[in-house]
Amino acid sequence: MQILKDRIRREGKVLPGNIIKIDGFLNHRVDTKLLEEIADEFAKYFDISKITVVLTAEASGIALATACAQKYGVPMLFAKKAKSDNIESGLIQSEIFSYTYKKKVTLLVSQEWLKPEDHVLIIDDFMANGYAMGGLVDIVNKAGATLEGIGVAVEKGFQGGGDKFRAMEGVPYHALAVIEKADENGIVFRGEE
Amino acid sequence: MQILKDRIRREGKVLPGNIIKIDGFLNHRVDTKLLEEIADEFAKYFDISKITVVLTAEASGIALATACAQKYGVPMLFAKKAKSDNIESGLIQSEIFSYTYKKKVTLLVSQEWLKPEDHVLIIDDFMANGYAMGGLVDIVNKAGATLEGIGVAVEKGFQGGGDKFRAMEGVPYHALAVIEKADENGIVFRGEE
Repeated sequence: MQILKDRIRREGKVLPGNIIKIDGFLNHRVDTKLLEEIADEFAKYFDISKITVVLTAEASGIALATACAQKYGVPMLFAKKAKSDNIESGLIQSEIFSYTYKKKVTLLVSQEWLKPEDHVLIIDDFMANGYAMGGLVDIVNKAGATLEGIGVAVEKGFQGGGDKFRAMEGVPYHALAVIEKADENGIVFRGEE
Repeated sequence: MQILKDRIRREGKVLPGNIIKIDGFLNHRVDTKLLEEIADEFAKYFDISKITVVLTAEASGIALATACAQKYGVPMLFAKKAKSDNIESGLIQSEIFSYTYKKKVTLLVSQEWLKPEDHVLIIDDFMANGYAMGGLVDIVNKAGATLEGIGVAVEKGFQGGGDKFRAMEGVPYHALAVIEKADENGIVFRGEE
């Protein structure tokens, strides 16, 4: 998606350790007009008519998933991240390693809001190693729901998460901007090398 | 806001300890159509033309704040909750007591995205004691920005947070559904007693 790549190149900051900051328009301050354009773009890659719910993980995925769900006319469901052990019953859980918290966290979705008859589109704003995404896929499977697709706005291609999902059979995966390299010389997207 | 009150009464669950669960349409699974209606309703109470940014706190406020910011044509900014001590520089911080985590957490907004020239509308989905809201107001003040209003979808009136902000001079506060009582006999809204 060209306008997204242009924004990343223009406003993204590359920090030491391959960290790419895009917090001016995607995951801290959020450009809601851009979210709508991203939602329209995802609609080209997935069969939106089948979808009954958009699933994401807290916190930064919520804004984009809301814009998508609004556009597609379905509810948005976000998995909560539990850092405590006092987890209630009636929850579908998946334990993941959180890069942000540098420890294991549990993704949680209430059984009540994800049913076997659901057709799920998973949306996230950002993917690096894909651990959180793996947890969301696990939750959809545990619910017995149908995974219709996975859409990611910005993928750090060099961290391998995206390729793992591209290799998954039967589930369309699409990332709108795949960053292949980010260093002091700037940002290179996949397909541009 | 009648449709919101109707939803709370119909779908809300009252748990022991005055806990009101509205996670089927507002803060876990989210009805995006309702968010749009709430955004339209807030626009009746605040001078939207003045606003340059909608501010909220992660995580559950993000969905509603996104729908509002989208409707008003401005960016949405969410304060992050830091549970660690390694906080970067360049951040506006406010320490609050988190009822969810049962400990102090720090709300953080990057200085870069909240400036003295900003006119801020704070939006949150839910307010009980108002600690998180107090932190957001503190952040707006520390940024030297102008607070144009505070909008809350559901307020637990009996926990006092809302009345604290109603008493604040010069800043319009509005909650769309104020729950005055919630027990085994059901939910009573302010004005209905």
